[in-house]
Amino acid sequence: MMRTGFQRVARLVLHKALPRNPHILPGLQQASKAFGSSTDSLVARFCPEKTDLKDYALPNASWCPDMLSMYQEFLEKTKSGSWVKLPSFKSNREHIQGLKLPSGLVAASDKQDWRIFTRCIQLEGQGYEYVIFFHPSEKKSVCLFQPGPYLEGPPGFAHGGSLAAMMDETFSKTAYLAGEGLFTLSLNIRFKNLIPVGSLAVLDVQVEKLEEQKLYMSCTAQSRDKLTIYAKSSGVFLQLQLEDEPSQEQ
Amino acid sequence: MMRTGFQRVARLVLHKALPRNPHILPGLQQASKAFGSSTDSLVARFCPEKTDLKDYALPNASWCPDMLSMYQEFLEKTKSGSWVKLPSFKSNREHIQGLKLPSGLVAASDKQDWRIFTRCIQLEGQGYEYVIFFHPSEKKSVCLFQPGPYLEGPPGFAHGGSLAAMMDETFSKTAYLAGEGLFTLSLNIRFKNLIPVGSLAVLDVQVEKLEEQKLYMSCTAQSRDKLTIYAKSSGVFLQLQLEDEPSQEQ
Repeated sequence: MMRTGFQRVARLVLHKALPRNPHILPGLQQASKAFGSSTDSLVARFCPEKTDLKDYALPNASWCPDMLSMYQEFLEKTKSGSWVKLPSFKSNREHIQGLKLPSGLVAASDKQDWRIFTRCIQLEGQGYEYVIFFHPSEKKSVCLFQPGPYLEGPPGFAHGGSLAAMMDETFSKTAYLAGEGLFTLSLNIRFKNLIPVGSLAVLDVQVEKLEEQKLYMSCTAQSRDKLTIYAKSSGVFLQLQLEDEPSQEQ
Repeated sequence: MMRTGFQRVARLVLHKALPRNPHILPGLQQASKAFGSSTDSLVARFCPEKTDLKDYALPNASWCPDMLSMYQEFLEKTKSGSWVKLPSFKSNREHIQGLKLPSGLVAASDKQDWRIFTRCIQLEGQGYEYVIFFHPSEKKSVCLFQPGPYLEGPPGFAHGGSLAAMMDETFSKTAYLAGEGLFTLSLNIRFKNLIPVGSLAVLDVQVEKLEEQKLYMSCTAQSRDKLTIYAKSSGVFLQLQLEDEPSQEQ
């Protein structure tokens, strides 16, 4: 059974990638250029203009009015090119098609019904409803998240673990696009208030710094009116040396 | 819309509960006695001898041989009374029946299909497969966790968020039974290795200390042979003043 040791991967990356240079300080543009990919080209590959794949990050009848109107607001902002709406497919394997990845990460295709965890429930409104908008030049994201009744913890409220997973997923997509960060090294969450099932939580994610191939990120999850903070978190992602050409395999 | 502020709840608990007493130091027996419930009585209420509810923490055809044999091993240990197998129902609302809870937490019943997040997927083997064993006198738990293909993150491996949620859930049940801890205040996870989908991860959870109505817990997730550590985490749970009598409402 294959085992991916982060420490081993990290060592490999640190040795293979740019030599340690004290002058390369935080500064994501620099670093991601050193790593060979601009954020723009990563975004372009991540958001195919034409695809047959179903995008789950689109409004449906279960979305609450807050979710729907914030979605429209951000969609408007994508027109100027400052924000990008990220598509959300059933499986990470679909996201990975055409993406730059570290060698060895792309799994052979098989017949299993693979689903990315945050799209594990396909019934509209019952599980995860979410959409992520990414701001390439400011290396930040906003995730609109509406937990359904299958994500319950305390009666009527989202399970803390469902928010943890939503944060990890938003961090992960942002880390990849902002700086080729791919693996979660750590995740620290402080919970403040419970999220009522069926309501909107807005996750604001920001890349804080990049140091020694690690992306440091922060997140605040709050109500739309910002009066209720649900949780704050930080995450560290490992930046990996990606292949120069997108993989042709599925 | 009801909003439960942890800080408000904590203040309430601290004021309503036992007066601050410097002599009441960590020592869970003491504290949970002060809070009015012995672990034994909590466990007895949590594990009804007779119930019509389906217990999802039972072996099925999807369990890998490691999961199955560790389950049998722990089941053997329950015979001496040192370990207890926790039932796992579809919804936390079913767990809450007959449980001591802080007033106001029990939600009115309604027709929605509520599911506890870690039982959100009912197809055997596709989502969460897990069972938690609890050791009342040592205030520790073991969770046998087998992630299915709907919990995927990187191709072929469990999403970090799915492990975070499994840890939060194991912490949560342990915190309740060990010391009336109910709400996650914080969760810190360091990821070391990816868990292959379909394989067993063993989560060892321990209550470390209790201070000022906060339960401090730790968790190590590793392979059965302990050669691969998947992640380590810590969690802090808020201890709440529970009602004296179990609620009769659903």
